[in-house]
Amino acid sequence: MMTLNQLFGTTLPVIQAPMAGVQGSALAVAVSNAGGLGSLPCALLSSDAVRKELAAIKAQTDKPFNVNFFSHVSPEPDVQRDAEWRTKLAPYYAEFGIDAGTIPAGPGRTPFSAEAAELLSEFKPAVVSFHFGLPSAELLARVRSWGAKIISTATTVEEARWLEMRGVDAIIAQGVEAGGHRGLFLSDDLSTQMGTFALLPQIVRAVNVPVIAAGGIADAKGVAAAMMLGAAGVQIGTAYLLCPEATTSQVHRAALKSASSHHTTVTNLFTGRPARAIVNRFIKEQGAINAAVPVFPLATSAITPLRAAAEGRGSGDFSPLWAGQNTSGCKEQAAAELTRELAFGL
Amino acid sequence: MMTLNQLFGTTLPVIQAPMAGVQGSALAVAVSNAGGLGSLPCALLSSDAVRKELAAIKAQTDKPFNVNFFSHVSPEPDVQRDAEWRTKLAPYYAEFGIDAGTIPAGPGRTPFSAEAAELLSEFKPAVVSFHFGLPSAELLARVRSWGAKIISTATTVEEARWLEMRGVDAIIAQGVEAGGHRGLFLSDDLSTQMGTFALLPQIVRAVNVPVIAAGGIADAKGVAAAMMLGAAGVQIGTAYLLCPEATTSQVHRAALKSASSHHTTVTNLFTGRPARAIVNRFIKEQGAINAAVPVFPLATSAITPLRAAAEGRGSGDFSPLWAGQNTSGCKEQAAAELTRELAFGL
Repeated sequence: MMTLNQLFGTTLPVIQAPMAGVQGSALAVAVSNAGGLGSLPCALLSSDAVRKELAAIKAQTDKPFNVNFFSHVSPEPDVQRDAEWRTKLAPYYAEFGIDAGTIPAGPGRTPFSAEAAELLSEFKPAVVSFHFGLPSAELLARVRSWGAKIISTATTVEEARWLEMRGVDAIIAQGVEAGGHRGLFLSDDLSTQMGTFALLPQIVRAVNVPVIAAGGIADAKGVAAAMMLGAAGVQIGTAYLLCPEATTSQVHRAALKSASSHHTTVTNLFTGRPARAIVNRFIKEQGAINAAVPVFPLATSAITPLRAAAEGRGSGDFSPLWAGQNTSGCKEQAAAELTRELAFGL
Repeated sequence: MMTLNQLFGTTLPVIQAPMAGVQGSALAVAVSNAGGLGSLPCALLSSDAVRKELAAIKAQTDKPFNVNFFSHVSPEPDVQRDAEWRTKLAPYYAEFGIDAGTIPAGPGRTPFSAEAAELLSEFKPAVVSFHFGLPSAELLARVRSWGAKIISTATTVEEARWLEMRGVDAIIAQGVEAGGHRGLFLSDDLSTQMGTFALLPQIVRAVNVPVIAAGGIADAKGVAAAMMLGAAGVQIGTAYLLCPEATTSQVHRAALKSASSHHTTVTNLFTGRPARAIVNRFIKEQGAINAAVPVFPLATSAITPLRAAAEGRGSGDFSPLWAGQNTSGCKEQAAAELTRELAFGL
């Protein structure tokens, strides 16, 4: 089997996890130049923004990098459900003096598309990764046309087998410790989600492509432990959140450095899909998993003005403070240095 | 710091997890004689049964062994809650022809007591382990009087610090992957429960006593990975469930060998406290966490006759099919051989 470095053209089998909303090209460039695989998350970016970021990466590195997209199916807007949710949030809007009638019903996050594939073909990234399954076979073929390697996330053995059958080049085994969106796509039953220690070796045993470990890995010992369990490499997100190259907000950075970072939970409140974040006031008051939340990604619009207003007061009470269960690796240091530390011993 | 072998007098830092209801002295004897630390679970045993089992262990090994107790506080019976729960279960009682009026309200599980300490003092086990915190300082002092080492389970960093302050000799870091009862005792919030990959290194960093990894460890590579993350040893349960020395029921063995073993969940249905088991009909129909369930351990009595009736028909639909998230290590082989395989390379 090819090593991950051979597959990607990297020198270190460390992938900086794509983290929409808290990083752009700067973090990806730093990690790729250090020998790892930097990632550009595109789920929250317009086509123009993607183009601008890809140009910035190309201008600053000739190393391989990864471009990440969500591959969900956009839902039909549901005006009634949206209205009911905003009614539930009315006391918060009142608290911050927000006129609920003025909040736009934005799309939240857009999935991978033919337009995105066309744009990517100009920049020919070495790796394209997906979350929530895969786009259509036709779109995948377009991505492959310039030789890009395709990877995606599995949170169960079944999902890993599903991805392998569709020809992915490597599979990210995302343990339940991981921060941000759970990649589950064959089931919405959260009890199927396993810890990295259980998930990783079972996926390694089930498939014949390289497996990348994600979830709870925060330092070189964690990387070594993942390799011991059969990983060909690792994908690490949380540890990069305090790097100067990340665009992590001040309230998010403050939360990561505080004791509150020790208590995260999987919540659907911020986007409609389960994602791991630090427990804050909004989660405590509305419950981490709330059945009234609009479906992904439509939930985003209702919370956006509350988040902005609270952050304006220096509060992360309504922000998605994405983080994994192991924040012990978060350090305010250059991403290149962090990447080399994580890969120490490899 | 002392190694776990020095602390316990063992030759292998592998603890066979105490598993009430699925094993007695035979499994403990086999593991201790192989150089690991065999464990006798006492939560479901009468004093007479404990005495009989301890005598059996003493007769078959002169190696160190562990005796395990629950250290919960027994609740007041709640006749109304109990009656309401039985009303919910009435359709099941009808299905199996059980007269609900004849079901006794048993205690379920009894906590460690002065009587138990007195009994232990006759047998002087090398190690005594507790689940759900610790008994009183007075009872702990009695256990220490014959030189026994005391260990207990932490599911959060806070619980680990709490245990260290009370003088335990080692701490079991129980990741969320683990089968059976979650050891949580400072909070009942399940979102505090972490995967082994996140929990273990954070507890290792927080305390100065040896830390034993538990949860998701199924083979020698898993043991090596846990040691890489700072563990002084491991506690393994699920992998032993198919050993001939275990008393695992036929329906439980069949479930472990089937594809259904890949889907476990944390449920309070069987005892009133959250515990990880294979998803079966009862869990699917009543929900894994059900607010109507009587408090631990009083929930046990209502399910007991249903379980017996279903098992009589060869069905595990109402049985607590305890298992961790990684059942890949379950093999029908002698416990001594399994212990040596797990410790391969140590």
